[in-house]
Amino acid sequence: MLQALRAQLDLDGRVYFNHGGQGLLPESSLERLISCYRHWRRCGPFSQQAERLAAEQVQRTRAALAAQLGVAGSTLSLAESTSHSLNIALWGLDWRPGDGLLVSDCEHPGALAPACRVAERFGLQRQSVVLSAADPLAAVEAALQPNTRLVLLSHVLWNSGRVLPVGQITQLCRERGVLVLWDGAQGAGVLPLDYSQVDLYASTCHKWWMGPAGTGFLYVSEQVRPRLQPTYVGWRSAECYWPDPTWYPDGRAFEVATIPVELLAALEQSLALHAQAGSADLRARAIRDLAGQLWEGLKADPKVELLGEQPPEAGLVCWRPKRALTFADLRSRVQWLEARGIFVRAIPQPLCLRASVHYFNTTGEIAALLEALDRLD
Amino acid sequence: MLQALRAQLDLDGRVYFNHGGQGLLPESSLERLISCYRHWRRCGPFSQQAERLAAEQVQRTRAALAAQLGVAGSTLSLAESTSHSLNIALWGLDWRPGDGLLVSDCEHPGALAPACRVAERFGLQRQSVVLSAADPLAAVEAALQPNTRLVLLSHVLWNSGRVLPVGQITQLCRERGVLVLWDGAQGAGVLPLDYSQVDLYASTCHKWWMGPAGTGFLYVSEQVRPRLQPTYVGWRSAECYWPDPTWYPDGRAFEVATIPVELLAALEQSLALHAQAGSADLRARAIRDLAGQLWEGLKADPKVELLGEQPPEAGLVCWRPKRALTFADLRSRVQWLEARGIFVRAIPQPLCLRASVHYFNTTGEIAALLEALDRLD
Repeated sequence: MLQALRAQLDLDGRVYFNHGGQGLLPESSLERLISCYRHWRRCGPFSQQAERLAAEQVQRTRAALAAQLGVAGSTLSLAESTSHSLNIALWGLDWRPGDGLLVSDCEHPGALAPACRVAERFGLQRQSVVLSAADPLAAVEAALQPNTRLVLLSHVLWNSGRVLPVGQITQLCRERGVLVLWDGAQGAGVLPLDYSQVDLYASTCHKWWMGPAGTGFLYVSEQVRPRLQPTYVGWRSAECYWPDPTWYPDGRAFEVATIPVELLAALEQSLALHAQAGSADLRARAIRDLAGQLWEGLKADPKVELLGEQPPEAGLVCWRPKRALTFADLRSRVQWLEARGIFVRAIPQPLCLRASVHYFNTTGEIAALLEALDRLD
Repeated sequence: MLQALRAQLDLDGRVYFNHGGQGLLPESSLERLISCYRHWRRCGPFSQQAERLAAEQVQRTRAALAAQLGVAGSTLSLAESTSHSLNIALWGLDWRPGDGLLVSDCEHPGALAPACRVAERFGLQRQSVVLSAADPLAAVEAALQPNTRLVLLSHVLWNSGRVLPVGQITQLCRERGVLVLWDGAQGAGVLPLDYSQVDLYASTCHKWWMGPAGTGFLYVSEQVRPRLQPTYVGWRSAECYWPDPTWYPDGRAFEVATIPVELLAALEQSLALHAQAGSADLRARAIRDLAGQLWEGLKADPKVELLGEQPPEAGLVCWRPKRALTFADLRSRVQWLEARGIFVRAIPQPLCLRASVHYFNTTGEIAALLEALDRLD
């Protein structure tokens, strides 16, 4: 089964560990995309028939994603990227000047940027929680202020691979009447999650889910939904428009206008391939096992320093070559590996290299990476 | 030249007059899209090489669009759709409660929706101008109030085909210190425009420009740029992120995060095909000539009523079959035509049928539409 999936990735001997940057689009997903372009052009592209086909595709992809996540389709908004989804959530709250917005020190620029903008626009107090070393639950508890209204955290920290306890942190915050917005870019498609423990979860589908770039989602729980107003809107946001728009009561209210539905067809196919590959639990275990092999190999290497003292709980493994002192050093190492068909990435803060291990990577690929790293330093 | 372009549209005898709904993606544009998917997957898809290729493609498409519009690339933000671009402009202004937002009675739901939302969110006074019958310049002048801060109008009205005098209206409004935001969905790619007469112009590229769905732009003049703050933001909006994001001083500030750059490659190719087909003036004249032929033919038909007393100035021709009394009547006529390979659309308000005539449509296709309409009623 995994061999059949790997055969669709046009690997040709390449060793790919950048699923956390962008996933490989399987050939059958690309073929779905291409056949939709040709078929819908032939049916229109603007026609009553094409309109029906596009609406059905949106519905099918939403349902497939909902099935993978274990949520109701009505709780999902289809979006362009993780950042797009985070923006929907951040701009949708009824902020008052002086409200507190708590953000960790490990967030991605794609989350920092909208958090800063919303804070500027609405005069919010920006609050920070340092997660790099501390016990995350205790750190969040200590950082919460009486005026804190939202906490923005990553499910899996992009710059260390650490997994945060979603359920415990949400529970803590719910008790204080505080919402938690999760950046799930490195979590969705990796770790199964009980969404009854989640208020707001934003992710892309072009990384671990291996859909095309330009696909993503926002999950909003039914309890939180009435508290979120739409910001960017268009003809897809409302049930009717005259005399005034009536916004959809579900996740569609946050969807705007014409989108490349062909990409959603490709995503549906990628989701089907994951479902065929095994249950979410099985895939998560395979990811942890393989990432753990890499972690053990790096631990045995005196020339590198691992970020994190425990074996990885998700797909990201981060380490610092002791001789790499600058980001440029790391970039040149990445380039050297790339020239040899091995793909990892450099992270600027904290300085490290990062490998994203997916369930269909192999022990042989991990050995190849370790061997290349050994030659490199 | 036009034959070569038509050969790329997979028409196979179909008569397509829905360019104002969605353009036909030329085969060579689709092939560019497909080859980018395959090539970038092979180069990464997440790698230093792929990052460079994507950045170059974004830059090339922005430059090609700027060249077609006759503006500086720095004034353009690449966006997903017309509505997306309108949202950027509408949410970007520093609104105060009670400010006036003037919108015409002929706007598309994709413009009405964000105008209503912004008005709700910031407590704006919604003001209306009736354009359906009046002299538009005089109507706008009479509708402006002392508190009006923004006027939202279509360059070409989607539901009648009427063209508004962009330069005159902008001039009038500038004298009052009022900005004009143009919905250019039916104007861009049809009518050449002197952008020195424009403050804000939003459009899609999947209609008349014949790029893929999911491509569009916002033009913001250099004078207006400092008055517009970014709303949805992400890693593409800022030059650097630490300690705080520094937003780009140009149109990139309104771009968010990862997008399907493959679509921009396809758009670049579509723009090149238009440039090869002739100057913007020549293409606009061909559109007017052909739309005029359809208009004359409909005028001679006693069974229909034309919307507009003058021959069309752009690509849209709108008419009402006198026996069609409901939107459902119109939809069933559209369906009947669609079954015979002829594509037009029904408009709900005012009730009418609409044909979008592009420069490469033919006299024969117009005759085929007129003949089918004659059989229909």
